[in-house]
Amino acid sequence: MAETPLTIQVHPDDNVAIVVNANGLPAGTEFPSGLTLREHVPQGHKVNLVDLAEGEPIRRYGEVIGHAQRPVPRGSWIEESLVRLPPAPRLDELPLATAVPPPQPPLEGYTFEGYRNADGSVGTRNLLGISTSVQCVAGVVEYAAQRIRTELLPRFPNVDDVVALTHTYGCGVAINAPGAAVPIRTVRNIARNPNFGGAPMVVGLGCEKMFPEWVLSDDRPAPGPGNTDSIVRLQDESHVGFGAMLASIMEMAEKRLAELNRRTRTTCPAADLVVGMQCGGSDAFSGVTANPAVGFATDLLVRAGATVMFSEVTEVRDAIHLLTPRAADEEVGRALVREMAWYDDYLQEGASDRSANTTPGNKRGGLANIVEKALGSVAKSGSSAIAGVLAPGEQVDRKGLIFAATPASDFICGTLQLASGMTLQVFTTGRGTPYGLAAAPVIKMATRKALSARWHDLMDIDAGRIATGEATIEEVGWELFHLILDVASGRKQTWSDQWGLRNALTLFNPGPVT
Amino acid sequence: MAETPLTIQVHPDDNVAIVVNANGLPAGTEFPSGLTLREHVPQGHKVNLVDLAEGEPIRRYGEVIGHAQRPVPRGSWIEESLVRLPPAPRLDELPLATAVPPPQPPLEGYTFEGYRNADGSVGTRNLLGISTSVQCVAGVVEYAAQRIRTELLPRFPNVDDVVALTHTYGCGVAINAPGAAVPIRTVRNIARNPNFGGAPMVVGLGCEKMFPEWVLSDDRPAPGPGNTDSIVRLQDESHVGFGAMLASIMEMAEKRLAELNRRTRTTCPAADLVVGMQCGGSDAFSGVTANPAVGFATDLLVRAGATVMFSEVTEVRDAIHLLTPRAADEEVGRALVREMAWYDDYLQEGASDRSANTTPGNKRGGLANIVEKALGSVAKSGSSAIAGVLAPGEQVDRKGLIFAATPASDFICGTLQLASGMTLQVFTTGRGTPYGLAAAPVIKMATRKALSARWHDLMDIDAGRIATGEATIEEVGWELFHLILDVASGRKQTWSDQWGLRNALTLFNPGPVT
Ligand SMILES: [Ca+2]
Ligand SMILES: [Ca+2]
Ligand SMILES: [Ca+2]
Ligand SMILES: [Ca+2]
Ligand SMILES: [Ca+2]
Repeated sequence: MAETPLTIQVHPDDNVAIVVNANGLPAGTEFPSGLTLREHVPQGHKVNLVDLAEGEPIRRYGEVIGHAQRPVPRGSWIEESLVRLPPAPRLDELPLATAVPPPQPPLEGYTFEGYRNADGSVGTRNLLGISTSVQCVAGVVEYAAQRIRTELLPRFPNVDDVVALTHTYGCGVAINAPGAAVPIRTVRNIARNPNFGGAPMVVGLGCEKMFPEWVLSDDRPAPGPGNTDSIVRLQDESHVGFGAMLASIMEMAEKRLAELNRRTRTTCPAADLVVGMQCGGSDAFSGVTANPAVGFATDLLVRAGATVMFSEVTEVRDAIHLLTPRAADEEVGRALVREMAWYDDYLQEGASDRSANTTPGNKRGGLANIVEKALGSVAKSGSSAIAGVLAPGEQVDRKGLIFAATPASDFICGTLQLASGMTLQVFTTGRGTPYGLAAAPVIKMATRKALSARWHDLMDIDAGRIATGEATIEEVGWELFHLILDVASGRKQTWSDQWGLRNALTLFNPGPVT
Repeated sequence: MAETPLTIQVHPDDNVAIVVNANGLPAGTEFPSGLTLREHVPQGHKVNLVDLAEGEPIRRYGEVIGHAQRPVPRGSWIEESLVRLPPAPRLDELPLATAVPPPQPPLEGYTFEGYRNADGSVGTRNLLGISTSVQCVAGVVEYAAQRIRTELLPRFPNVDDVVALTHTYGCGVAINAPGAAVPIRTVRNIARNPNFGGAPMVVGLGCEKMFPEWVLSDDRPAPGPGNTDSIVRLQDESHVGFGAMLASIMEMAEKRLAELNRRTRTTCPAADLVVGMQCGGSDAFSGVTANPAVGFATDLLVRAGATVMFSEVTEVRDAIHLLTPRAADEEVGRALVREMAWYDDYLQEGASDRSANTTPGNKRGGLANIVEKALGSVAKSGSSAIAGVLAPGEQVDRKGLIFAATPASDFICGTLQLASGMTLQVFTTGRGTPYGLAAAPVIKMATRKALSARWHDLMDIDAGRIATGEATIEEVGWELFHLILDVASGRKQTWSDQWGLRNALTLFNPGPVT
């Protein structure tokens, strides 16, 4: 029995639609509208609803995603080579704060069970984070973390885990290069993530360029000598042998664990959440199923007074003209433009541009180019006013919808959102990726039912039901909102936490190594 | 009882010497030469042997390391602010192959017990390496490696270990940027390291920019569909659930382990060794104790017909005029210049220069600037002709002394030397660093007795005895040569292997992330 042919046209002005059926649709497929397919169109790929002349705009999401490379009769497969990439929106003529969305009705009464910190921030986990000022100590810190986990942690049952915050920065880098501010503040701000309970400890070497003191301070103080209350330096004279280094780390860890163990979950308003939104391994469904459902949940969280970050500069760049009007004020609008311009320049320095973002998997998934990908990606931001903008790795300082500028690279975006203060992440994927973080729970949402079924023990929520009409964007959005509260409270476990799948911290270092 | 004051003047033309005594030497210290210290001079720091006029050259190693910032009476502490950094040697007027050292007498009869591969290369370890084409699979591969280690490895006693070759490249990067060739060939060539026995396997995701096929090929072939004999793709349709992914990886690993388990150590000439030389956490003794002893061992290895790599471009740049005359021919000389020019440009793009190399620890250790550091660093190259030059991550294709261009950053240099085919590394350190690699044994040599004594279970060999006159450079060089043969043969274990201290692979990506 032939399947019912299903397509999605996002916006009434669109002259293309995407095919929903799992195996695509064959040539000759007829639609009630009278449209007949001239060729096979794979799942997630586009069919044109009208004849296109050469150079004619191709519209999806009500926006121009490119221009026809040649004349294309209606009913064709609009594969990527038919779509001429338009230039990115100019940054010098964007409307700033011209259509600021009015606040939506407050959403009251929603709470979660979190760990409240002395500074007022609230964690979703109770973790001992061991920061590092330089890559050279990574092996020793990982060795120590394993021993802490087996020898100390069982005595502190209120503490969830120990996280070795190792990375590859701190020495062998141009510490005075203009780009160095980014990795330095990232390491510092991750140490302050609410999930670590305000009890930082740092392991350093002693001869590195990034002093351990910088992890604990807003400035870049000169290094003090030797060990301190919060710093273990492996080169300290008191460390005679490897065992002495381990003993210093474990002694400090034990004190921190005792402090952390006194914390318990208390009922907190949803306003205390700091949620990061990300997508990775996207397909053409990302923009019509998972990301709009995330956008709906974003709006719910903003209505509840929470902080929500969206990121991924190269996936925002081509939709920036849709975002600057939503800036809460002109200053926020200018900050959005500033981050786009910084990244344009960064990519140009590397002889690249924003088209370097798209992957072969994106394209197989039906995304013709970065414009189409971006229009789907920004759906995660929902419809609220944009209340603030963070440069990569800056700490968030307000409630509401925040653009936290990061690369789209999954590991780097996750690392930077942790630095910005994210305590829970939502991650949407169409192609499928086994993403996970050690420092915050990650809820993974599939854009397609096929992925959700196949990766049944890796995907936490299925937005593919939106494409088939089994659920609405609103329904999946509410489902996600409730799951966020459950996971933040520790009532439900995500699959990545179940398996212990954790990405390495991956710092964004725009400066050179030496 | 006052210690005997000890200083080292490296070259008869030098107008400075360095203080050897562990606590430095106080003002008023008198030397048999008639020199009296005008102030305290810390260990490893320089004292001027003659009055210096402003702008007068300061000479160490017989070379100008800088010019006096102001007039300095003899017996002063020549601390870094007194030393004006000279410009780097010009690259357009270097003598190429003008003083090619004649071959030294062959050294015959030295052997080690190694694992000979089908292609003629010889490993010092028998390891299963699991390559990855993208960072997204890292968590799953590390999970799988742990299960392989506990469930499969005990059945294959001839295999030493399983190494998850995870990294942060493969997607979220500008894969067509000019710099992308470096990380791509690094991942590929590490899979071919002789210690992995020519039995590569790759875990990929399925939508990444760097196709798993690229790890197995000299070219960049289009991706095939699904799993193959050497590639597990997590997104493969056959993987229903996380367990199925794990099963695919473990099934392939088991086949590889069975192949590797048939290998046994056989007696091989020392000529089959590929040794990498590196320094990190250097001090003023690096250039007079450990690095010259390494240089002596380098000469012994070259005389025995082996391959020896030295690296660290920013620590070679200021001594390049001493190296280009030693190039075996003009082509090698031009390749040396090419790598220096490439790095000059790379640093300039990041608004930095070679002076970004030196660390606070270097300076506390007595190294005034990058010129002084470089002159000490190149001592690792010994005195042989330079037979070849490799761009970062290229595979070595010849015997003799090779300049393998890499950043000086310890983790990145180690990763790139592994890609070039290194099967054992020698690492010298003055300040102390707990460096280690999973894919090859690392012999760590201390430049100072104090470090060697304090880090007695991290340092494998003590070159500090050279400064005190207890051993000669030749004696420590021979000791290292014999230790290399013992460690390569598995007869002796290094401290980093004893503790299992392993650096993360750290790819050199000169291109942008997206
Ligand atoms: Ca994305
Ligand atoms: Ca430039
Ligand atoms: Ca992403
Ligand atoms: Ca070095
Ligand atoms: Ca180094």
